[in-house]
Amino acid sequence: MQYNFANRMGNLQASAIREILKFTSDPEVISLAAGNPSSEAIPTETIRSLSDNILNKTPVLALQYGVTEGYAPLKESIKRVMLSREKIVHENDDIVIMSGAQQGVELTCKVFCNENDAVISENPSFIGSLNAFKSYTKNVIGVDMDVDGIKIDKLEESIKANPSAKLLYLIPNFQNPTGHTMSLEKRKAVYELAKKYGLIIIEDNPYGDLRFSGEHIPSIKSMDTEGIVVYCGSFSKVLSPGIRVGFVVANREILNKIVVCKQVSDVHTNLLSQMICNDFLNTVDYSEHIKKLQKIYKHKCDTMLDEMDVCFNKSFKYERPEGGLFVWCDLPENIDMNEFCKLAIKNKVAVVPGSAFMPNDTCHTNSIRLNYSTPSDEDIIKGIRILGELTQKF
Amino acid sequence: MQYNFANRMGNLQASAIREILKFTSDPEVISLAAGNPSSEAIPTETIRSLSDNILNKTPVLALQYGVTEGYAPLKESIKRVMLSREKIVHENDDIVIMSGAQQGVELTCKVFCNENDAVISENPSFIGSLNAFKSYTKNVIGVDMDVDGIKIDKLEESIKANPSAKLLYLIPNFQNPTGHTMSLEKRKAVYELAKKYGLIIIEDNPYGDLRFSGEHIPSIKSMDTEGIVVYCGSFSKVLSPGIRVGFVVANREILNKIVVCKQVSDVHTNLLSQMICNDFLNTVDYSEHIKKLQKIYKHKCDTMLDEMDVCFNKSFKYERPEGGLFVWCDLPENIDMNEFCKLAIKNKVAVVPGSAFMPNDTCHTNSIRLNYSTPSDEDIIKGIRILGELTQKF
Repeated sequence: MQYNFANRMGNLQASAIREILKFTSDPEVISLAAGNPSSEAIPTETIRSLSDNILNKTPVLALQYGVTEGYAPLKESIKRVMLSREKIVHENDDIVIMSGAQQGVELTCKVFCNENDAVISENPSFIGSLNAFKSYTKNVIGVDMDVDGIKIDKLEESIKANPSAKLLYLIPNFQNPTGHTMSLEKRKAVYELAKKYGLIIIEDNPYGDLRFSGEHIPSIKSMDTEGIVVYCGSFSKVLSPGIRVGFVVANREILNKIVVCKQVSDVHTNLLSQMICNDFLNTVDYSEHIKKLQKIYKHKCDTMLDEMDVCFNKSFKYERPEGGLFVWCDLPENIDMNEFCKLAIKNKVAVVPGSAFMPNDTCHTNSIRLNYSTPSDEDIIKGIRILGELTQKF
Repeated sequence: MQYNFANRMGNLQASAIREILKFTSDPEVISLAAGNPSSEAIPTETIRSLSDNILNKTPVLALQYGVTEGYAPLKESIKRVMLSREKIVHENDDIVIMSGAQQGVELTCKVFCNENDAVISENPSFIGSLNAFKSYTKNVIGVDMDVDGIKIDKLEESIKANPSAKLLYLIPNFQNPTGHTMSLEKRKAVYELAKKYGLIIIEDNPYGDLRFSGEHIPSIKSMDTEGIVVYCGSFSKVLSPGIRVGFVVANREILNKIVVCKQVSDVHTNLLSQMICNDFLNTVDYSEHIKKLQKIYKHKCDTMLDEMDVCFNKSFKYERPEGGLFVWCDLPENIDMNEFCKLAIKNKVAVVPGSAFMPNDTCHTNSIRLNYSTPSDEDIIKGIRILGELTQKF
């Protein structure tokens, strides 16, 4: 049978990262290619106890159908505990629970984008979101970044050059893959541009709580007087990724559309997991929990970066992230990124070539992404030493 | 802010059933409008024990990221236990785990349908799937049914009249909303038509195990020598709907596309729930469990139908379903379906007007859907008696 798939499928390819991760099934390969939270950061015993309690006390509530919008007490708890630092939920906003923040990104695109509309993102950006956009439109446009975020002048140029642009996708905190954080000044500037040109901003903030140095910077959503920011949050990095719970904060009119699309997709998010998240927020000292996570990630990040400072050839450039899971490393011009990644694999270390994070085929990069959250300290050091030798050899 | 949503959103409205269900928050209203499995059919204590065991023994495995395709042991268990009665998984087929069968239906449409392609479904059909199709195409076409399934001559006419038709959506067992079961003869006939005209069949089978009378009829997928049937199965009615676990069986080439689309949607299905399903299939006598469920549903169905036989005016026509959750009742021509439903609500009984299940605006019906799985026996009898009085009064 010759299948006649939809045109959109032509834009989509399986993630290049997955191809690399295949190598990591070899137990001898040290993977600095993943994006998992540190397993020691998952409060397994607390989750077990909360889950058991829920299934003892209200099993039918947890196991029957729920409403698409999400478990109402969880929405209140997120507002009270996770979003308490700044005003994220404005007067005409509400929260809807998602099966991971990724679903919030995907459904926002489904709700807004026709196939000829464009999405503008940072270049590079998170492959999962880029592919979500490509599943609805061919036009995904990348705008280059500095260490303090997207280039504002280039962004305005891009908006002007692409009048079909509807969405602006940003990861302001500890961006995936670069680890860069957008400055307050730039957050204000992108908000003003979005307002001026009628764009909707998707502010994806899965790593926001994982800041281990520097000062908190207000979210773009906190400036959202116009109802043009869709804020995507997640429990994946602060509790557990396997439970697939995230949320979206947006104007109710947008959320009504997102809910209709979620209803036809997975009806509602796993209810037991929503109840676990709710009980977690209500029984655990969340700020203490976050401090513990920050300590874990700071240690892992320092372990990797300190070793890079020692081992890497100085022609390899990188910045110390202030949070999150990733380091972005620019290779000197004379070294080919793909060759370097292949050589790394030969030497039993997996890293992701920056090409995996390009919004489209016209974008180029000569960088690699390194992850410090998933490997053990020992593997971080071992892996970086091997890479360090390669940086010297080339 | 005046939002400029995607065109597809114009096709989509919040489910009419949800509007009716709003009335059912009134505790005095008896709801025969839902579609939940019977709460007594959910093995809550078993699930609690399996969950606790998993979170004790392999917490990190259950709580970290999983692969998009699904938990590998679960795929094997589904094949061995749930699909053992007949050959569902053919040589070039595989299984992918979904966040509910609904996701399988939605993603199959996303993978195959451009916005001008058509989907043909039974008329009436399941509103969740119809809306999933409408989120990708305007062209959802209904073909009328008899008690033994879709009208084959009308189906061929419809395929001929709609050369853009790509998908044929069918619920062969105890269809939602009609409760009708497609005969073996018709299953063979629709398969031959799909083959002849190059259509992909989505065979949605959430209720298949809930047969409480009559004989098992082979699935369309069991005849699928060509790789043109996408089979959607679910744990919602045999274990728990709140855990959101279903699966798709299809040719690997189709599944590869579905996996890419699932990856950009929810990354993977809740892993703890997948592991619970797997342990359930491996520790419980599944056929005994199913027998227990069949007994529950037979009892509930008999309770409703026996009472209808006594109370309903003979001008109201219905068939006894052989399984599933629903009864479809045709009103006499002189009685308006919407008026009847409104009067029922006034008398504190909620039922769903058949109009909620129409594939498009050109389809008409004068029937109502009644559900016996969710209400208590007492409420079934009380509700049917109230409706019975109304059928006599009109």
